[in-house]
Amino acid sequence: MLDALAHVGRDPATGGYIRDAWSDADLELRDWFAGEAARRGLDLTEDRNGNQWAWWGDPAREPGVVTGSHLDSVRQGGAYDGPLGVVSAFAAIDVLRARGFRPARPLGVACFTDEEGARFGVPCVGSRLLTGVLPPERALGLRDDRGDTLADVLRRAGRDPRALGPDPETLAGVGVFVELHVEQGRALADLDRPVGVGRSIWPHGRWRFDLHGRADHAGTTRLADRRDPMLALARLVLDAREAAERHDVLATVGKVLVTPNNANAVPGHVAAWLDARGPAEEPVRALVRELCERFGAAREESWTPLVAFDRELRDRVARAAGEAPVLATGAGHDAGILAAAGVPAAMVFVRNPTGVSHSPEEHAEEDDCRAGVTALADVLEDLCR
Amino acid sequence: MLDALAHVGRDPATGGYIRDAWSDADLELRDWFAGEAARRGLDLTEDRNGNQWAWWGDPAREPGVVTGSHLDSVRQGGAYDGPLGVVSAFAAIDVLRARGFRPARPLGVACFTDEEGARFGVPCVGSRLLTGVLPPERALGLRDDRGDTLADVLRRAGRDPRALGPDPETLAGVGVFVELHVEQGRALADLDRPVGVGRSIWPHGRWRFDLHGRADHAGTTRLADRRDPMLALARLVLDAREAAERHDVLATVGKVLVTPNNANAVPGHVAAWLDARGPAEEPVRALVRELCERFGAAREESWTPLVAFDRELRDRVARAAGEAPVLATGAGHDAGILAAAGVPAAMVFVRNPTGVSHSPEEHAEEDDCRAGVTALADVLEDLCR
Repeated sequence: MLDALAHVGRDPATGGYIRDAWSDADLELRDWFAGEAARRGLDLTEDRNGNQWAWWGDPAREPGVVTGSHLDSVRQGGAYDGPLGVVSAFAAIDVLRARGFRPARPLGVACFTDEEGARFGVPCVGSRLLTGVLPPERALGLRDDRGDTLADVLRRAGRDPRALGPDPETLAGVGVFVELHVEQGRALADLDRPVGVGRSIWPHGRWRFDLHGRADHAGTTRLADRRDPMLALARLVLDAREAAERHDVLATVGKVLVTPNNANAVPGHVAAWLDARGPAEEPVRALVRELCERFGAAREESWTPLVAFDRELRDRVARAAGEAPVLATGAGHDAGILAAAGVPAAMVFVRNPTGVSHSPEEHAEEDDCRAGVTALADVLEDLCR
Repeated sequence: MLDALAHVGRDPATGGYIRDAWSDADLELRDWFAGEAARRGLDLTEDRNGNQWAWWGDPAREPGVVTGSHLDSVRQGGAYDGPLGVVSAFAAIDVLRARGFRPARPLGVACFTDEEGARFGVPCVGSRLLTGVLPPERALGLRDDRGDTLADVLRRAGRDPRALGPDPETLAGVGVFVELHVEQGRALADLDRPVGVGRSIWPHGRWRFDLHGRADHAGTTRLADRRDPMLALARLVLDAREAAERHDVLATVGKVLVTPNNANAVPGHVAAWLDARGPAEEPVRALVRELCERFGAAREESWTPLVAFDRELRDRVARAAGEAPVLATGAGHDAGILAAAGVPAAMVFVRNPTGVSHSPEEHAEEDDCRAGVTALADVLEDLCR
C-alpha cells in the first residue's frame, strides 16, 4: 500500500515529501484513505475538524478500538512518518479478516489532520481541535507562509471553517487508541528488536524568537555602527546547543526567516524557532528561561507536558506484541494528545535502522514493517475480544 | 520627480521598496524614464543589455558626457538609492536649460539595469554586460528565487535574450560618466557638507558557503548523533565578524537559506552568503581564505577589484562642485564598472544624515538633494563646455 502513495507530494529533486495539510497532495491522500476504507466495506466519516475515520462496526453504540496515524508530512520528510501507521492499520484489518476474526467491539482506523504542523506552525491540529486543547478561533487565524489563514484554506478545500472545535461525540467513540509509527531514533536498532512500545512522550514545545536589528548597507556601515540580528541568531544557536548539553535535553533551531535576506544588506530582523524537549519539564523550561533572558521574550507557539501512556494498556500491548521493549520518545504524536485528554492510548514503534527521521533518508525494512502489522493485528485482536 | 515614483514597488507593510530587475515595478520605472526623456525632447534608446539612454545631442558623432544611475532596488530598500541619481540627472538638465546653456558635446542620461542584483544575485548586471566583464552565457543562466532564468524573464518582458553581450558601440558614446548617489555612510554628515566626490570604490565581493549536514528529527536525534549545519552557520557568522574586526574590513552574512526550514527538523543544508569589502584587496582575500579553510570552499559569485576614479576628472568635479570633499566608498556602483573598463568616471555623493542605507529609513534632506542637483549641473556645464 505504501507504494501506492510513493508519488504523492514527492519532490523529484530531493526524493523528500511535501504534504502540507489541505494541499493538493493532502487531498489526494484523503481520497486514497476513503478508497481503502471503501474497498474493505468500512464506514467512512470525516469529523468536524477534518480527521478521517473508517469504522468496522458502529462506535455510536459502544466505544471502539481505534488505530491509525496521519498522512501529512514535514517538508522534505520521508515516506514512513505517518503513512506507515495508516497503512499498517488497514493491513492489520486484512490480517484479522484472513484469520477469520470478528471483533466484539467496533474497530476503527483514524487519519488525523495536520499532525506535523508543517504549514501553519502548530503540530497535531486535528487531534488538538478534537480534544479541545486548541481553541478553534486560534486555529482558524493561523497563517501559512503565503499569508493564507487556515480558514481560507479550509474554505478552498470545500470545508466549513465554522464547524471546527471540540467534538466530544466523536471522541466518545474512541475507547482506546493504538498508534503504530516508524521509530525516530535508534533504540530498537541498538536493542536488535523489530518492534517496541511507547512508555511516554517527552514534554516538548516550540518558541519563536524575534531578533531585531537595523537594516543597513553591507558595504558602507562600519562594524561598530551596526545592529546586526544575524550575530544574535548565531549566539542563540550556539547558546541553545550549550544549554541543551548542560541540561541533558534536546534543543534545535531548525527554522529561520531573515528580513530582507539580501546578500548586500545587514538584516533588519531575524525570526528563529526553537524546538526544545526532554525527559522532564523543568530542565526544558530552564533552558527556555535562560535563552529568553539573553535574547528577549519568546512567543510560545506550542507546549505539551509529559504524557505517560496508560500503564495497563502499555503492558497489555507489549505482551500482545511479543514482549516488545518499552521506550520513551521525544516526538509528539496524536496518541499523546488523546492520552492527555484521558483516552487510554498506546504506541507501537517499528525499527528505523539509521534512526534518521524527518528526512528522505528515513527508512524501515520490509520485514520489520510486516512484523509491525502482525504485532498490531495481535494487539487489536486482544483489545477487541 | 521622486514623489512620482514613491508608490512604485512599495511594500505597504514596511514602507520598503521591492523593485527587482524586470519585475512589473521595474517595467513601470522604465516607462517613467521614457516619459521624462520624451518630455524634454531627449532621444531615447535601450541598448542590447536593457540599459536606457536619453540623449541631448548625438553620441554617434562625438563621445558625450553622461550622468545617471539606476532605478532598481534591493529588497526592502529606500527611495533614494539609485532613483536620486536618475532624477537629479533630469533635474540638472532642466537647470542647464533654465540657464540658457547649450552643451558643446552630446549630453546623456543613463539608467543601468539591475544594479543591485536583488533578483539574480549578481550586481551591476547591465553595466557588466555592456563592458564585457560579465559573459552573456553566464548572465542568461542566472536564476531567481522562483527558478526562472534571466533568459526566461527577458523573454517575458518582450526582450531578446540573444541580444545580450558586450556593446562597444554604445560604450564608445560615453566620453565621461558622472553618477550622483545618496551617500551610504555618514562621512558627509560628520564633515557637515551636503555634497562630496568619490575617490575610489573598495574592492568587494560575494561568496556563497554551502554548509552540509543531515536532516533529522528535532525530537528524537541525540545531540551527539547530529550533523547540524545551523551550528556551522552560527560559527561562520561569528568568525566572519571577528575576522573583519581583526583585518579592519567589512564582512556581512546578510542572506541565509535553510533547508528544509522546519521548526521540528534539524536542517539538512544551510546556504549562507558572505559579503566582504575593504580599503585594500589583501585583507579581504585573507578573511575569505580563513573562512574557506574552516567552512569549506565558497563559490565566488562576484569580485570587483579596487577602482580608483580618474584623478583629473575627480579634481575637476570636486572644484566644479564647490571644493567638495573626496571620499572612498565601500559600495559598488555602475560608475565603478565603467571606470574599470577605462571610461573616465566620477561620483557625486549627497549627504545621508543617518548613514542608513538599503533600508526604508534611508534618507536625504530636500535642501541637500537640491544642492546635489546644482553641483551636478555645474559639473555637467564644466564638462560640456
